[in-house]
Amino acid sequence: MVDIIHRIGIKAPLSKVYAALSQPEGVAGWWTKETRGESKLGGAVQVLFRNPSGAEIGKMGFELSKLSPDKEVHWHFTSGPAEWIGTDVTFSLAQDGDYTLVLFGHRNWREAVEFTAHCSMKWATFLLSLRELVETGKGKPAPDDLKIDTWN
Amino acid sequence: MVDIIHRIGIKAPLSKVYAALSQPEGVAGWWTKETRGESKLGGAVQVLFRNPSGAEIGKMGFELSKLSPDKEVHWHFTSGPAEWIGTDVTFSLAQDGDYTLVLFGHRNWREAVEFTAHCSMKWATFLLSLRELVETGKGKPAPDDLKIDTWN
Repeated sequence: MVDIIHRIGIKAPLSKVYAALSQPEGVAGWWTKETRGESKLGGAVQVLFRNPSGAEIGKMGFELSKLSPDKEVHWHFTSGPAEWIGTDVTFSLAQDGDYTLVLFGHRNWREAVEFTAHCSMKWATFLLSLRELVETGKGKPAPDDLKIDTWN
Repeated sequence: MVDIIHRIGIKAPLSKVYAALSQPEGVAGWWTKETRGESKLGGAVQVLFRNPSGAEIGKMGFELSKLSPDKEVHWHFTSGPAEWIGTDVTFSLAQDGDYTLVLFGHRNWREAVEFTAHCSMKWATFLLSLRELVETGKGKPAPDDLKIDTWN
């Protein structure tokens, strides 16, 4: 199995970062504006991505498979691109002085393909968007996300 | 073995991207200003990182282990952090319309540790710096690099 992993520090309390990862309204502020769903363990969340012209370019569904307040949030993908189904996104939080450290994982890819490399780069930019949201109140969720290559 | 992989698109000809990866003066424009060395196959390159206050925070050495003009550049690390020694950074270039697509790899880590996650995130921001350098003439090499967590 192949994992994408990243680490970012956010100058904010654990609880603010946890809210941005565990609640659909939070996720809508940094990943994609069109995020709908529940915020309870086992709850389903749907996300939809559009390009700046409004055309749909992708959608996925995940369940909140682990919610440990101020510590851990896991998303288990049940629909979306074939490569994503069955994968898990994990956020592990830890406090370090004024910072919340986020250890991010997009885990259990069946293989490392070019799309994995695209997603790794794209996740890094979305984690910068998460930091902006939590530190300043305004992130860059799709369709206002940073474009990184010819795919998105 | 564990690999970090990223994909980025740069609106520029292959030759401009290749120069920024294969020549020390190019690397100095997006990774770290203090880059010195050769630009021939098997040549040695040294890089040194400082924080914005001028204190040294790390240095590494690599050899140019593959140079295939406008196609491929490989760096084999021979000194630096213990986790980096013996690893390889690979850049594979391909043209797609007006874009040069860069498939980046930092390959052959012995294991995925928290420092790997830090480096993955940091490489993503340096690839954005590479894109800025090639597209606009000005990147964000260290010590002007984007800080991403409590380590750097």
